[in-house]
Amino acid sequence: MTLLNRLSLTGAALLLPMAAIAQEAGEAAEAAAPGFDQIGPYIMTTLLFLVGGFLVFWMAAGFAMLEAGLVRSKNVTTQLTKNIALFSIASIMYWFVGFNLMYPGDGWTVAGYVGTLFSPTSLEPVGLAADAAALDYASVASDFFFQLMFCATTASIVSGTLAERIKLWPFLIFVVVLTGFIYPIEASWQWGGGWLSEMGFSDFAGSTLVHAAGGFAALAGAIVLGPRLGKFGKDGRIHPMPGSNLALATLGTFILWLGWFGFNGGSQLAAGTVGDITDVGRIFANTNMAASAGAVAALILTQLTYGKVDLTMVLNGALAGLVSITAGPLDPTLFGALWIGAIGGVIVVFTVPMLDKMKIDDVVGAIPVHLIAGFWGTLAVPFYTDGTSFITQIIGFASIGIFVFVVSLVVWLILKAVVGIRVSEEAEVNGLDQSELGMEAYPEFAKG
Amino acid sequence: MTLLNRLSLTGAALLLPMAAIAQEAGEAAEAAAPGFDQIGPYIMTTLLFLVGGFLVFWMAAGFAMLEAGLVRSKNVTTQLTKNIALFSIASIMYWFVGFNLMYPGDGWTVAGYVGTLFSPTSLEPVGLAADAAALDYASVASDFFFQLMFCATTASIVSGTLAERIKLWPFLIFVVVLTGFIYPIEASWQWGGGWLSEMGFSDFAGSTLVHAAGGFAALAGAIVLGPRLGKFGKDGRIHPMPGSNLALATLGTFILWLGWFGFNGGSQLAAGTVGDITDVGRIFANTNMAASAGAVAALILTQLTYGKVDLTMVLNGALAGLVSITAGPLDPTLFGALWIGAIGGVIVVFTVPMLDKMKIDDVVGAIPVHLIAGFWGTLAVPFYTDGTSFITQIIGFASIGIFVFVVSLVVWLILKAVVGIRVSEEAEVNGLDQSELGMEAYPEFAKG
Amino acid sequence: MTLLNRLSLTGAALLLPMAAIAQEAGEAAEAAAPGFDQIGPYIMTTLLFLVGGFLVFWMAAGFAMLEAGLVRSKNVTTQLTKNIALFSIASIMYWFVGFNLMYPGDGWTVAGYVGTLFSPTSLEPVGLAADAAALDYASVASDFFFQLMFCATTASIVSGTLAERIKLWPFLIFVVVLTGFIYPIEASWQWGGGWLSEMGFSDFAGSTLVHAAGGFAALAGAIVLGPRLGKFGKDGRIHPMPGSNLALATLGTFILWLGWFGFNGGSQLAAGTVGDITDVGRIFANTNMAASAGAVAALILTQLTYGKVDLTMVLNGALAGLVSITAGPLDPTLFGALWIGAIGGVIVVFTVPMLDKMKIDDVVGAIPVHLIAGFWGTLAVPFYTDGTSFITQIIGFASIGIFVFVVSLVVWLILKAVVGIRVSEEAEVNGLDQSELGMEAYPEFAKG
Repeated sequence: MTLLNRLSLTGAALLLPMAAIAQEAGEAAEAAAPGFDQIGPYIMTTLLFLVGGFLVFWMAAGFAMLEAGLVRSKNVTTQLTKNIALFSIASIMYWFVGFNLMYPGDGWTVAGYVGTLFSPTSLEPVGLAADAAALDYASVASDFFFQLMFCATTASIVSGTLAERIKLWPFLIFVVVLTGFIYPIEASWQWGGGWLSEMGFSDFAGSTLVHAAGGFAALAGAIVLGPRLGKFGKDGRIHPMPGSNLALATLGTFILWLGWFGFNGGSQLAAGTVGDITDVGRIFANTNMAASAGAVAALILTQLTYGKVDLTMVLNGALAGLVSITAGPLDPTLFGALWIGAIGGVIVVFTVPMLDKMKIDDVVGAIPVHLIAGFWGTLAVPFYTDGTSFITQIIGFASIGIFVFVVSLVVWLILKAVVGIRVSEEAEVNGLDQSELGMEAYPEFAKG
Repeated sequence: MTLLNRLSLTGAALLLPMAAIAQEAGEAAEAAAPGFDQIGPYIMTTLLFLVGGFLVFWMAAGFAMLEAGLVRSKNVTTQLTKNIALFSIASIMYWFVGFNLMYPGDGWTVAGYVGTLFSPTSLEPVGLAADAAALDYASVASDFFFQLMFCATTASIVSGTLAERIKLWPFLIFVVVLTGFIYPIEASWQWGGGWLSEMGFSDFAGSTLVHAAGGFAALAGAIVLGPRLGKFGKDGRIHPMPGSNLALATLGTFILWLGWFGFNGGSQLAAGTVGDITDVGRIFANTNMAASAGAVAALILTQLTYGKVDLTMVLNGALAGLVSITAGPLDPTLFGALWIGAIGGVIVVFTVPMLDKMKIDDVVGAIPVHLIAGFWGTLAVPFYTDGTSFITQIIGFASIGIFVFVVSLVVWLILKAVVGIRVSEEAEVNGLDQSELGMEAYPEFAKG
Repeated sequence: MTLLNRLSLTGAALLLPMAAIAQEAGEAAEAAAPGFDQIGPYIMTTLLFLVGGFLVFWMAAGFAMLEAGLVRSKNVTTQLTKNIALFSIASIMYWFVGFNLMYPGDGWTVAGYVGTLFSPTSLEPVGLAADAAALDYASVASDFFFQLMFCATTASIVSGTLAERIKLWPFLIFVVVLTGFIYPIEASWQWGGGWLSEMGFSDFAGSTLVHAAGGFAALAGAIVLGPRLGKFGKDGRIHPMPGSNLALATLGTFILWLGWFGFNGGSQLAAGTVGDITDVGRIFANTNMAASAGAVAALILTQLTYGKVDLTMVLNGALAGLVSITAGPLDPTLFGALWIGAIGGVIVVFTVPMLDKMKIDDVVGAIPVHLIAGFWGTLAVPFYTDGTSFITQIIGFASIGIFVFVVSLVVWLILKAVVGIRVSEEAEVNGLDQSELGMEAYPEFAKG
């Protein structure tokens, strides 16, 4: 902030009257200030949000790499553009509308259902005094920063499913609605203290609120948009369209895995007591175990089913393991995390072809990973978490699913009617990078 | 360090006399040691520097990926080599010369202008005792680690502009001078307590001191080096030379964005009070907002100006938003961060073609992003920060700009005269990877 | 966890009886709870393990990218699959067997040599009470999370050496044995309080225990497996097989470098005192210096030896610098870290061709980087660390080397005899991606 501290360290302080005065003032303030027993938890929880937040931010890069690796090279630039743009839009919308809509406190517009509309986020004053601050939580800025990342994640899920055929701008308009309104409203039902939380629904870090919600928005889009040209042949055959760069896809998966430690660990929402920091440790260990088990399950299952391991299934298996543990990463034992995550991996291997049979074209497998494994994770909570019930979990999942799916469907249909959401056949064949952007991702590499 | 602690945890401590003794000794030391009210701030600020430092370290990878993605494939290996080499050289020079030259305390060679020359950094003793330590700041090692990363960042900026035509070794010699002398001297004027800080100049995390300084060194180099062959046709036409891998360039941008949380947040230089950690939170939120606004501004503006979105402009827009907020990331509101960052994005879209018209060939757009948006960010400080003035900001920017530009120009001219800085025409056409290194980045991929 | 804290922040607490009750309960617990002087070190050390752990996790991505970049494109998918699979297997085996085998406390099966077999890790209860916890270390969960990453790193080292010719499943079976048994047993000799630690061997973060151990397992595999077809011509010539993507390899190196701050810094195993956090700072600074010096040494030496800089040598030079400082990153001065790291870089440049002469085919140079530089790092400890001796260091290195090499050799020979470990000649020529997985990494890029 200033360099007074640094100067005093180097021994120059005594030579500078200004520094000396500042130091005295500092000491006076220190005398009056509450000690670490009072401020320690606030500092540690704020730190948890900042570290957790930058890890979840990093997931935006993970989605970008995963999706860029799983689309064909003619659509890579467009996919990258969508990912950086959707994150940026989410940042703005969550400030302008989302945060206070999601956490209304006692300022609900419709109690338990809709929070405060159009109340942009304000941060606390610079240099907040300890005795003026509520010390039992964390700084608003850090909380906003952390929660914003969850909102952006929801939008990231959608972009993968709809790749290779959706127009750029209509997609971004949908992101405005999703990150400003749909996500904050449904998330307020639980994390904002709305009706679902009162009912006893449990979703620790968002298997339903983030992952399944993103999956439902993607599903609605995929139905309205239709499959890619040639994906489902008239003869009933399904034509695989392999991703152009599996190194990028693997990198993206590792990035997401890393970011998930912040996603689940930060959702403890406290780090300043022995109990809380120990819980964060449990969550890290369980999160890692579930991802590993999902990957190993997909590894073994693809070998047994297809006779060969399928790397994209292994990647999605790890991600499904992560989604599966997200609704309850704290309470299970490591063995619990293992079997919950492994079932997530199994789900992916079986539901990816199922979606194909339903002729729903999900380019990166986001619906199996986020929606279906998200359902599984939500359902699995009562195995380890006291005070939860399967019925309540299903009601919560279904409520959010129906809300997000129906509203998304309406928005997609309006967009389709008003501006059109799908590129022309010619543009799709030539690739969106040419039609939408006029810019190739790999202009110098010859096509095989 | 030792495993005594671990053993006592597992219940074995009582069985081991050695462990028991160590534990007693530890308890005695604990009794005498100051409590967390005294040591907490030191610990938290040291932690801030370590976490902030590894995030800024990560920016070195970001520059490497961004630049490797934006050059043509025949120059990728060289660009990667430059980036890892410049970082390594910066580490050594900043230890050997830079750190104590930049932070002279009361040991100025020319008071307020030049610090202590050739005084390599010393770290504090192993196992520093709390009562021996100045507890109002942080460990020297963590501070050195953090500040070193800023020095390296300055050099990273230069490598992008001069890509695809500069020889490896002369570039690295320039890096030695820049990281050992030019950067530490100009940065000492402000952060070392020199004349600019006494005048009231304000540059929180280095829009001027790091980013514009890097930009000025790059500009001097670009002028001496001249544009790439064929970039500016004799007919006055500008020939675009598209980057070879936009996925890498996007990855690099996300890495830089992530690293910037450490860059700006760590520059609070304190994290152990409610006021400080809350400020770090504000900085994270504002930094993210400015990046997002820069990206969205470039997204919209390229659509309106060119009729198509330009991904490389969006990436540079995000980076320009980050540079713009760097001079004052703490004081603005989120809305302030939004418009300051958005103007950064606008600047990039308008100044990239402007440089082309001036026939200055900046391969990755580093001058618009770091120098021009750096000027904007420096200029914008007084809108939100009390006690600053536009005049002082302009004087500070101009002083550092002139110093860095002139000294860099002299160094580049000497290098040109003595060893030559530009590869031969043949080498440039065939690519620097062949001529400088004899090693292709993508040897198996056919050229399109 | 719950949203009570958040609600109280927004002023709603007084309206909600449930929240009010919870708050009162919280206050009561607070009154009884030990203060930050007691709990601060536990919290900070747990945090160190979590942050250090996620950084070392990230090294798994680094190895994946480094190896994917250094193999030929026809083997990239297989290499990626191996890396994500080996990490996942390590997670499961280290939970099921490894952790308690490595840290037996007083539960040795063979005292000082073999710990407790088949005792899966249990985490502490949710919401651990401060007065029930041993506050002089950290949470078991965080410790398990951190240590697991070291186990996985050991396996990552093996996969690079054996690339491009080993079958997927036999490799993964070896990983099961390595991560479940070989690594935990040899590591218990030192870090678990076994015979080597009693003897006075010193290996702060694992130059021998992790890196050389991985290198010895790789060496045994490389001998049993034999070199790639065509690598060593009948005429005695060595045929270079350039990596397919040096941008990925450079990214991998930067990732590993970043992760190493957690690897070495976290190995301080404490962060809650002035002495400990200052030591962590020293370790960060020294680790960075050693990496930089290794890179610069390789840069200069390849220029002098071959007349051209070799990027892959520079990357391996940085990694060798890191391995070299890992046995003793705390005690050296920055100058000590410089020369220790630089010698690491020199070692790589000289031993990579030496291995070739011995007709040991190490695809990524893992044996020079991890085994030979690991030996150097272990040997160098007594230069700066009191109470250590060269003899003891050599005995420790040799003991672990012989144990890991012999056991690995036996396992590889059994695997070779029972299931075969090498793909067919045809499969090797066509690439493992086709034969093992049926999935190309870059299906759209034409081969040059």
